Amino acid sequence: MAVSQTNSAWATLVDLGEPGRGRHRLNDRLAAGLRTAIRDGRLVEGAALPPSRALAEELGCSRWVVTEAYGQLVAEGYLAARVGSATRVSWSPEALPPRPSTPRAAAPPPVRYDLAPGLPDLRAFPRRRWAEAVRAVTGSAVHYDLGLPDPAGHARLRTTVAQYLRRSRGADAQPAAVTVCAGVTDGLVRTCRTLRAEGVTDLAVEDPGWGRLRDAAASTGLRVHPVPVDADGLRVDDLARTPARAVVVAAAHQFPAGAVLSPDRRARLVRWAREKDGFVIEDDYDAEFRYDRHPVAVMQGMAPGRVFLLGSVSKTLSPALGLGWLVAPPALAPALRAANPVATAPPVLDQLALATFIERGWYDAHLRAARRRFRSRRDLLLDTLATRLPQARVDGTAAGLHVLLHLPPGTDAREAVRAAAAAGLRLTDLDGYRMTPSADRALVLGYGNIADTEIPRAVDLLAEALSGHADAAP
Amino acid sequence: MAVSQTNSAWATLVDLGEPGRGRHRLNDRLAAGLRTAIRDGRLVEGAALPPSRALAEELGCSRWVVTEAYGQLVAEGYLAARVGSATRVSWSPEALPPRPSTPRAAAPPPVRYDLAPGLPDLRAFPRRRWAEAVRAVTGSAVHYDLGLPDPAGHARLRTTVAQYLRRSRGADAQPAAVTVCAGVTDGLVRTCRTLRAEGVTDLAVEDPGWGRLRDAAASTGLRVHPVPVDADGLRVDDLARTPARAVVVAAAHQFPAGAVLSPDRRARLVRWAREKDGFVIEDDYDAEFRYDRHPVAVMQGMAPGRVFLLGSVSKTLSPALGLGWLVAPPALAPALRAANPVATAPPVLDQLALATFIERGWYDAHLRAARRRFRSRRDLLLDTLATRLPQARVDGTAAGLHVLLHLPPGTDAREAVRAAAAAGLRLTDLDGYRMTPSADRALVLGYGNIADTEIPRAVDLLAEALSGHADAAP
Repeated sequence: MAVSQTNSAWATLVDLGEPGRGRHRLNDRLAAGLRTAIRDGRLVEGAALPPSRALAEELGCSRWVVTEAYGQLVAEGYLAARVGSATRVSWSPEALPPRPSTPRAAAPPPVRYDLAPGLPDLRAFPRRRWAEAVRAVTGSAVHYDLGLPDPAGHARLRTTVAQYLRRSRGADAQPAAVTVCAGVTDGLVRTCRTLRAEGVTDLAVEDPGWGRLRDAAASTGLRVHPVPVDADGLRVDDLARTPARAVVVAAAHQFPAGAVLSPDRRARLVRWAREKDGFVIEDDYDAEFRYDRHPVAVMQGMAPGRVFLLGSVSKTLSPALGLGWLVAPPALAPALRAANPVATAPPVLDQLALATFIERGWYDAHLRAARRRFRSRRDLLLDTLATRLPQARVDGTAAGLHVLLHLPPGTDAREAVRAAAAAGLRLTDLDGYRMTPSADRALVLGYGNIADTEIPRAVDLLAEALSGHADAAP
Repeated sequence: MAVSQTNSAWATLVDLGEPGRGRHRLNDRLAAGLRTAIRDGRLVEGAALPPSRALAEELGCSRWVVTEAYGQLVAEGYLAARVGSATRVSWSPEALPPRPSTPRAAAPPPVRYDLAPGLPDLRAFPRRRWAEAVRAVTGSAVHYDLGLPDPAGHARLRTTVAQYLRRSRGADAQPAAVTVCAGVTDGLVRTCRTLRAEGVTDLAVEDPGWGRLRDAAASTGLRVHPVPVDADGLRVDDLARTPARAVVVAAAHQFPAGAVLSPDRRARLVRWAREKDGFVIEDDYDAEFRYDRHPVAVMQGMAPGRVFLLGSVSKTLSPALGLGWLVAPPALAPALRAANPVATAPPVLDQLALATFIERGWYDAHLRAARRRFRSRRDLLLDTLATRLPQARVDGTAAGLHVLLHLPPGTDAREAVRAAAAAGLRLTDLDGYRMTPSADRALVLGYGNIADTEIPRAVDLLAEALSGHADAAP
């Protein structure tokens, strides 16, 4: 079916625009115009194009421009040229059946006060020093560092992280046992794949806990079993009620319950792993932030052959950096590689920048400053809550970046979160982290990413949301 | 079982070192010394520690130092303290059964001349401009850009990449259809998971082709079927012999065969996808580098509802950057998100840096310079091969970063690769990319990462390796 076009129609159809317009050459513009016309159905399959000389004349360009454009579209499959015949359109777009479209969620109200957990102080990100570290390594990296990266991470960062974990976290880590990854979730996925290859089929997780970790474990095909948490952390004896041979535990500071795993349970958990020939996956979540005492060393040091240690800079520097580490039992290093054949390390220049940042002492300095800032901010938040919300009880060790606010019986926590969000205050409901329902009502308040000066107003908004009079706020 | 230590033994055991040595406080050093002694079995479970006053006297420190150290190790589970009784070691390390260790591969000989395919010119990485782009965005990013990243990528880079692909690659891409990922492998994994969720079970791949892409597809549970490649690219009609409903194709420049998919086959491939209600995954591998003509536009523009487009900066800037993109059919955007619940985007500052790099025109400038460099390097390589290896035939379109060198019948390609490696020349054997054996013997020579001045010597070494006299080289 040939469709003829009047001469004037061609100029309109392909819209070459003004001569010299834009960066593209005339033949590219002509090819683009014809391509678009074919794609959107204005030029239908079988349509004959004018001879190149005729089109060139009409468009006021050289014949070369037209033959180049035709040749390009022949190479791309949109046009077909046969000797002694007109060049014709050889392509027609597909009319796909419309799919039911997902309704777009309404835009959430703007966040003015952020008490959602899981973030460090983004305003305090050490921009100057980070940029300096990147600048230094971009200049100094040898050129083969810019080639295919080692999937386990750059040797320099593996060494630096191993030293850091030995020195600051009491880990038993040699560089060969360290894998650089994109964060705790990535590290958990790699660990779970390795455990699956080792015959593990069932994994225990803390309840309540991070849903993202559950999702990551489940995405590898492991069956996930909740185990409750109390004031001493994970209820280790309850592991026996599950078929799990491995468990994910935030020993230093549980999220969201805020408990620290008791000394007795630490020892019992490692014994459990030994007896089951099992494994502990230690999520060293926000362990750097302990305000009442020295941070407790990682469990990994007690049983490096049984414990996978996961950590990252997401809660200390920024989750946008996408940098973390995994320390695996040395005997499982070959299994870890084999189970993750296409896993890649984070960008090499970022890895080298983090190594530089740690080696120059900037990471320790940042942590010291952050610890001071968070300790005083936590005190301010607790004082403000005690004054303005005396009926609510705060729970959790003096550590980390969040507190748990227990609500009086009968409070509708979900409604409070909704009312607070409407007033510009973001926080979360403990129920959102639970796998097993509970009558206990509580809110999780993160104080990492809120300015000290915003706390009084944020707590006022929270009090109003809880009293059911959020809308009466000025 | 209590083990008593003589007084002098304690000072040796915990090795506090010189006063004021190192950055750590005395109590931390004492805790670390005791922890290590327990871990390595020098202090056994049940052993009684000296009363704090006695140990302090022996070590010449304050009693506070000892009680702090004991308290730390009690919290960590290494020691147990009971009122009215000595503090005792409550932990013993596990003697794990030794695992059969993987024999370490001998270190490969050093690479002096690199003709392995897959790398751009690492010496030409635009270090100064990249560092400037990172510096600019690290200073200018708003603080919430440093929070939890959008798993589909930062909106600014998605917009910039969509514009770039429309302008330079003839793609039909809106920002919402673009997902930023770590590279082509990552993009393929996400695509395969999505196709699995859409009911696809079988995937066709080009044979020969990149093993890493096959591994990535297989890791998602898809069955992978080889389809042969000839001088016109993928043999589209052979798809019907497989149960595949999707296919991965490097239409612009096949690796390693070097063919460009013919116009006729482009159209037939998309028609195949329509008829099967199937999908094409277009790996836009090194498509920027075409030396004989204008690069051909992506197939994705012909059928945006059927084609996934994968690209990255690994072959244009550096694989160490870990930055790529995936353009998915708009109707599958919800499925793509749902099938990749824990996938993360690359580090945000890198994403913003790439957006800046493209927006300032630095990417186009880099590509223009690279195209000129690779074109003349390819000519030099072909000339040198023609002079010094007249019996070998070179194949492949004037494009990309590699050529295929067909060897005379009877040549032992594997032995030639081994001999070349022993002489410091890295290259690869076509057989390494094949799923189906073939009698054709060929080498894949990548010229991205070799200096022009190294080419004559590299070809000499290759000639020697092929003649079986590599060791006679000076």
